[in-house]
Amino acid sequence: MNAIQIYLAKSLGLLLHFHRFRSFVVPPILLQFCLGSSNFSLVRLSKMDHAKIFQGIEEDYENLKEILREAVAIQSVSSDPSKRDETIRMVHWMKAKLEEIGATCSLQDLGNQTLEGKEIPLPPVLFGTLGTDKSKKTLLVYGHVDVQPAQKSDGWDTEPFELVEKDGKLFGRGSSDDKGPVLCWVHAIRAAQKNNVELPINIKFCFEAMEESGSVGLEDLLKREQKGFLSDVDFTCISDSYWLGTKKPCLTYGLRGICSFFVEVSGIKQDLHSGVFGGVVHEPLADLFWIMSQLTTVENRISIPSIYDDVAPMSEVEARIYKEIEFDVKEFRESVGASKLPTEDKETLLIRRWREPSLTVHGVEGAFYGKGEKTVIPSKVIGKFSIRIVPNMTPEKVNKIVGDYLNELWKKRGSPNTFNAKPGHSAMSWVADVNDPNFLAGARAMKLVHGVEPDRIREGCSIPITLTFQELTGKSVLLLPIGAADDMAHSQNEKNNKFNYIEGVKTLLSYIMELGSA
Amino acid sequence: MNAIQIYLAKSLGLLLHFHRFRSFVVPPILLQFCLGSSNFSLVRLSKMDHAKIFQGIEEDYENLKEILREAVAIQSVSSDPSKRDETIRMVHWMKAKLEEIGATCSLQDLGNQTLEGKEIPLPPVLFGTLGTDKSKKTLLVYGHVDVQPAQKSDGWDTEPFELVEKDGKLFGRGSSDDKGPVLCWVHAIRAAQKNNVELPINIKFCFEAMEESGSVGLEDLLKREQKGFLSDVDFTCISDSYWLGTKKPCLTYGLRGICSFFVEVSGIKQDLHSGVFGGVVHEPLADLFWIMSQLTTVENRISIPSIYDDVAPMSEVEARIYKEIEFDVKEFRESVGASKLPTEDKETLLIRRWREPSLTVHGVEGAFYGKGEKTVIPSKVIGKFSIRIVPNMTPEKVNKIVGDYLNELWKKRGSPNTFNAKPGHSAMSWVADVNDPNFLAGARAMKLVHGVEPDRIREGCSIPITLTFQELTGKSVLLLPIGAADDMAHSQNEKNNKFNYIEGVKTLLSYIMELGSA
Repeated sequence: MNAIQIYLAKSLGLLLHFHRFRSFVVPPILLQFCLGSSNFSLVRLSKMDHAKIFQGIEEDYENLKEILREAVAIQSVSSDPSKRDETIRMVHWMKAKLEEIGATCSLQDLGNQTLEGKEIPLPPVLFGTLGTDKSKKTLLVYGHVDVQPAQKSDGWDTEPFELVEKDGKLFGRGSSDDKGPVLCWVHAIRAAQKNNVELPINIKFCFEAMEESGSVGLEDLLKREQKGFLSDVDFTCISDSYWLGTKKPCLTYGLRGICSFFVEVSGIKQDLHSGVFGGVVHEPLADLFWIMSQLTTVENRISIPSIYDDVAPMSEVEARIYKEIEFDVKEFRESVGASKLPTEDKETLLIRRWREPSLTVHGVEGAFYGKGEKTVIPSKVIGKFSIRIVPNMTPEKVNKIVGDYLNELWKKRGSPNTFNAKPGHSAMSWVADVNDPNFLAGARAMKLVHGVEPDRIREGCSIPITLTFQELTGKSVLLLPIGAADDMAHSQNEKNNKFNYIEGVKTLLSYIMELGSA
Repeated sequence: MNAIQIYLAKSLGLLLHFHRFRSFVVPPILLQFCLGSSNFSLVRLSKMDHAKIFQGIEEDYENLKEILREAVAIQSVSSDPSKRDETIRMVHWMKAKLEEIGATCSLQDLGNQTLEGKEIPLPPVLFGTLGTDKSKKTLLVYGHVDVQPAQKSDGWDTEPFELVEKDGKLFGRGSSDDKGPVLCWVHAIRAAQKNNVELPINIKFCFEAMEESGSVGLEDLLKREQKGFLSDVDFTCISDSYWLGTKKPCLTYGLRGICSFFVEVSGIKQDLHSGVFGGVVHEPLADLFWIMSQLTTVENRISIPSIYDDVAPMSEVEARIYKEIEFDVKEFRESVGASKLPTEDKETLLIRRWREPSLTVHGVEGAFYGKGEKTVIPSKVIGKFSIRIVPNMTPEKVNKIVGDYLNELWKKRGSPNTFNAKPGHSAMSWVADVNDPNFLAGARAMKLVHGVEPDRIREGCSIPITLTFQELTGKSVLLLPIGAADDMAHSQNEKNNKFNYIEGVKTLLSYIMELGSA
């Protein structure tokens, strides 16, 4: 990088710094300028340097894989009380990894929780600090080392807690969500150290082991640490989401929020035999099925009046992002295994996934759910559904609208059974400025590693911690995905591609270096 | 009993013999005559004799209770592979009891079954023969010695497999369903033997230990034995149902049949994250909820066209049975814990329970059923419902009508998902002639013991073995309930009243004696 490049970069940084506090809407011409401006090289590395480092990372693959194998083998299923010891062990294992790269670590005790009637300790949160140079900016890295449950009998082809490489894929629970990406940070920093490259920023780590179980206690801890551990954070980066497809990298600038609902119907004091009582009681489950059938249309549009009213209008700039994004609808349809989708127009489909609310019915608690037949009249049933919310919807208003609608429906139903609709947990949506320095550093890093400009995407799901970090630090949060869209997080046969794992290490190292000039 | 009484009884027997092959509908005047005709005394016992024998049964109570305690202590849970040894031991224990009263017994091996992935032996069926006098008629007694699962933690007040007497109630799993009634047969015969009373009939026993798990293998065995063990059976009696209430005895002359249905909707290849995919797929569970909501009205009447068409018209005689039956609707409503019932008219309610079809929705397989929230879009869901059928409905026609209706609904829904509605197991309904000699013997026995004319009732549920015995023997099957309506079979705190247990012994003995003149 020559002096002119550095100057341009700094000017742009200031410019963008100005814009990051404005609304997401920037003039198209500026956006174009910004999108086209990410072809910077590493700040303190020559092209030759990073080629050498990248090659070193590739050559170290067997070692990187062994470390991931160790991590996958620890069954840190946070929702399973019988695996709580393993979950805690995973935090200690991770602490050792951070200490190996020179970080100063501490374990933040969160006390106990009651799970399945037993009081058990919460896994501590791992804080780490690498570098305390006041002249450098500070990056906060968040990740989680707990995983979703998995058993071979769920339909895995291999043992879920044994890392298996096949056809360039690393199968194993947590390989992609989120142990793989967390380890990419460690590998990236070690690669810099091996090559005697000074990191241009300080790095702080916040790794938890309760993410798959609602991050119990984390938000409170972070609030307490707003003026402590978090006080000097300039940027936050989270690698816990996915590429839009399988080929092109992307940066994630938006997330939907969520409002969950429970619809309880009861009316008889215990489950009854359908032979003995069928025909002479008002069946709670029949009432529930009817209520649950009134929530969406067959095309999965929400039937609740005024629910779409608060959706933010689409700007021209934003419309252009949707237009230009690389997304293969046919491939998407095939990946979910559907014969047809409610819409097969690329932009409409992405808009419905990312910037419109959607309603999903999840199931029923209290009814018969096993295989075969059971001639039961369930006495108390709870229907579960949730609505994904987007700017400018608020949980308060959504809960009110939905509650009113459900109560209206119940009145219309006219059943003498007992009805109780209540909201469950909720989370706000989040949207960031794709032109702030944090995002631009990420974009430059991706272009350097992958040779293409990353897409700017949103996600349909919630990562509530994103909003927490943004609010507590007052600074930009970047979602920088490492894994591919088909990684099957939470599902059977979760994997991380060897390619994504290696390129992830390179990308995170490049991002760290790029942040030095952000 | 004097000579005229015997003559009258025999004439009536012939008359009734003629009528038992006719339809259920007999002229009201004959019915009245028959209902009024059950005040016969024991054939070979004077009033003094049976008073003495009955007193002996009462005095033997502590002994009868100890034998029930032994039976309850054997954890013969047929659905639990880990308790298969106990279930088999129960059959052997029962064999010893039959041998003690002089029955010649054999164990009918049924081979193995695969349960929870393990191949385990089926409990054998116990056959017993007491008396082979060709000049006497033969009664076949059916019962079962396996039980439903039970654990104190399910909500029992006492250990389920320890018999506990409290306030005149004998609490314990199987005390009422069906170990208690099975033992009443043994006690009744022993009481006759103790008093040197000759049994006027031969008795055969068929006791199984798989009733609570679908009677696997029994029907095939009985078919093979149609011309063997079953060839000389003149009457069958089953004590495995309950009084209509808690105070008045009854005989059961009808059972509803059942047609079960599975409604499968699929369309995506695996469960999806509702954040990532919500809004852009046709959700199978939303389709299923809609289909399941179209089956019944809020008042639990079936919405399927023509489903009521084949219900047998009500005769005047039958209408009178419903009119005269003792049944407290308020007590019934309170016992199920409902604030209101679809009908609170006694006769309409009993008619809907016993001689009209009803449809119950049981639940959904494949959707989220746990506590709390899970943001899943289930990929393949199976709705379960069943229809209780009555004369003159046939499973074939019901399956056709329901299948057509479901497919019509699906067309109306217009979803691109995959739909597959299929029938599950089915069983015919059963209705007997309340005036055949077997029923009249039962009625006389009950009147003798309880001093009141028993109600003639039906049950809303199926006991498929009833129909099997009727078809294979070509002779009358009587359901003679021993336990009270509040015995909590299959539920927590199952009990048998001390009163019902003792009077049950007397009733079965009286019934055996009455059959001698049937």
